[in-house]
Amino acid sequence: MEDVIYGPVRSDLDRVKEKLCTFTPVGITHFPDSHEMLGQILGGGKLLRPLLVLHSGRFYNYRPEKLLVAAMSVEMLHVATLVHDDAIDKASTRRGKPTINSIWGPDKAIVLGDYLFASAAEFAAETESIRAVKLFAGALASISTGELRQSFSAHKVNQTYDQYLSRIIGKTASLFAMTTKMGAVLSDAPEESVQVLRNYGLNLGIAFQIMDDVLDFIGTEEELGKPVASDLLQGTVTLPSLKILQQYPDDNPVKRLFEGNGDEADNIAEAIELVKDTSILDECLQTAFDYSQEACKNLDSLPESTSKESLYALADFMVKRRY
Amino acid sequence: MEDVIYGPVRSDLDRVKEKLCTFTPVGITHFPDSHEMLGQILGGGKLLRPLLVLHSGRFYNYRPEKLLVAAMSVEMLHVATLVHDDAIDKASTRRGKPTINSIWGPDKAIVLGDYLFASAAEFAAETESIRAVKLFAGALASISTGELRQSFSAHKVNQTYDQYLSRIIGKTASLFAMTTKMGAVLSDAPEESVQVLRNYGLNLGIAFQIMDDVLDFIGTEEELGKPVASDLLQGTVTLPSLKILQQYPDDNPVKRLFEGNGDEADNIAEAIELVKDTSILDECLQTAFDYSQEACKNLDSLPESTSKESLYALADFMVKRRY
Repeated sequence: MEDVIYGPVRSDLDRVKEKLCTFTPVGITHFPDSHEMLGQILGGGKLLRPLLVLHSGRFYNYRPEKLLVAAMSVEMLHVATLVHDDAIDKASTRRGKPTINSIWGPDKAIVLGDYLFASAAEFAAETESIRAVKLFAGALASISTGELRQSFSAHKVNQTYDQYLSRIIGKTASLFAMTTKMGAVLSDAPEESVQVLRNYGLNLGIAFQIMDDVLDFIGTEEELGKPVASDLLQGTVTLPSLKILQQYPDDNPVKRLFEGNGDEADNIAEAIELVKDTSILDECLQTAFDYSQEACKNLDSLPESTSKESLYALADFMVKRRY
Repeated sequence: MEDVIYGPVRSDLDRVKEKLCTFTPVGITHFPDSHEMLGQILGGGKLLRPLLVLHSGRFYNYRPEKLLVAAMSVEMLHVATLVHDDAIDKASTRRGKPTINSIWGPDKAIVLGDYLFASAAEFAAETESIRAVKLFAGALASISTGELRQSFSAHKVNQTYDQYLSRIIGKTASLFAMTTKMGAVLSDAPEESVQVLRNYGLNLGIAFQIMDDVLDFIGTEEELGKPVASDLLQGTVTLPSLKILQQYPDDNPVKRLFEGNGDEADNIAEAIELVKDTSILDECLQTAFDYSQEACKNLDSLPESTSKESLYALADFMVKRRY
């Protein structure tokens, strides 16, 4: 499975990872542990977004140098938002490692996040494509709007599926969509294929976020690299908790948790059990599966290639993953 | 004086101000008070940076539409950094008005700042000039590096003038330099003039920041729109406090303040008096004056124009201002 997903772009992705791990911010290196710490954060994840840029850029004119800087740009943008998220959430671990805010404090984490935004913008500009830069800026706008919405809707018990969907599109799927679209644009794909690849990214991103929301309930702290039920603790309504709120409107552990009734740990444990023991888990997995299928359908009209097979496999893997 | 500084660009600047005051962020308008509040913040300052873009773009091919979006971009970038600064400093007022963090809380202020970065990047891309986008990204990188340096050097009593200078170039003068350079680039100025206008912006920015640092000591809360001696309270060494530390190395109120000895208010009052009653004030004003003179010299080789007169007058005004 791994071979199918990574196969054709493995050497390009290795270059991206190498560049991320050794990224040296100008003028910041002399601060305590910054170099090593940054490398860990930047090159430490699954590099899904770089993977998507690299595959999406292989259907038409393959331009590895442009794709490389685009991949750097999207991953840095992603990590910058994580650094800010962690500062806001006061999170102590991410990907199993201490967060920047837990080491340097939240104030420096905010500024470091800003620096990473700047570097991401610099890499986007290195594509020499104004359209790519506009995609980059638009994605950052969507992400922050999504985060603002999430922030304003925290601890609210009356939310709709549409509100949830529009929030996860903003904070997650828009970047996936931008990523696949950027690969297409940088390889001079015809407009129809640009749109197709963008839609693939969007649907994949929605499937990814729903799985993330599910895993937050059913994963272990070790698998997640952060505490179980972090979303609930932050007051964020995700698909499983939305279903609890909707299916048990009179009384349920999420409502009690958000309204400060009863013991916090008890409410969380009860919410987790409710998700696992009822049809809620299967319903959520089905929704994620539907979006991954939709993503696959988007690909059908693209020319046959090894990257097309990889993107099919990735959509498939997305709803089977446990981390 | 005002007429000379604003004259030739007043109508363009009015358009920028109008666009800033009515800026409606996509998808955020339904949040409490956001629209009115944003307009106040965005269009409320002196609009120095838009002024600089507009003047700098009038020496060669004057392209008002490109200059307009560039001016929007630099002001939004500036305001985004202010929103983050205020969240970090827990500041309650800015320009005499409540800060975003004091109304919405620091977490939402961080995300709103990110949104403003995104919008700034979108406006930069609307210039359709990759070089302008690169200038934009480079300025954001300099600002965050400067802020990080400031953050890591807070409350440190052993600092040099060079460290101070490199910090204020990063956090302030680099954006001024980018602003004048962007105007030049967007009007197809010859490379020599691009460099000249960039240097003018850099020197003007240094003069501006030194004056800001001085005013923090000698201004009133009403003039400043924020508490007196905010820098000292944040542990930031500026030129006046650097001189106190260097001229009274054995014992001085700044050292006592940073090391937590003695009453905070007494130490601050004593530091303010020391600046006012010794040669420190005049020395700082002289340094600011020297940089403003240097800025004027940079202009000499440019073609004669009303904007050239405005930029001379602005450099002059910069070191006479009281707010």
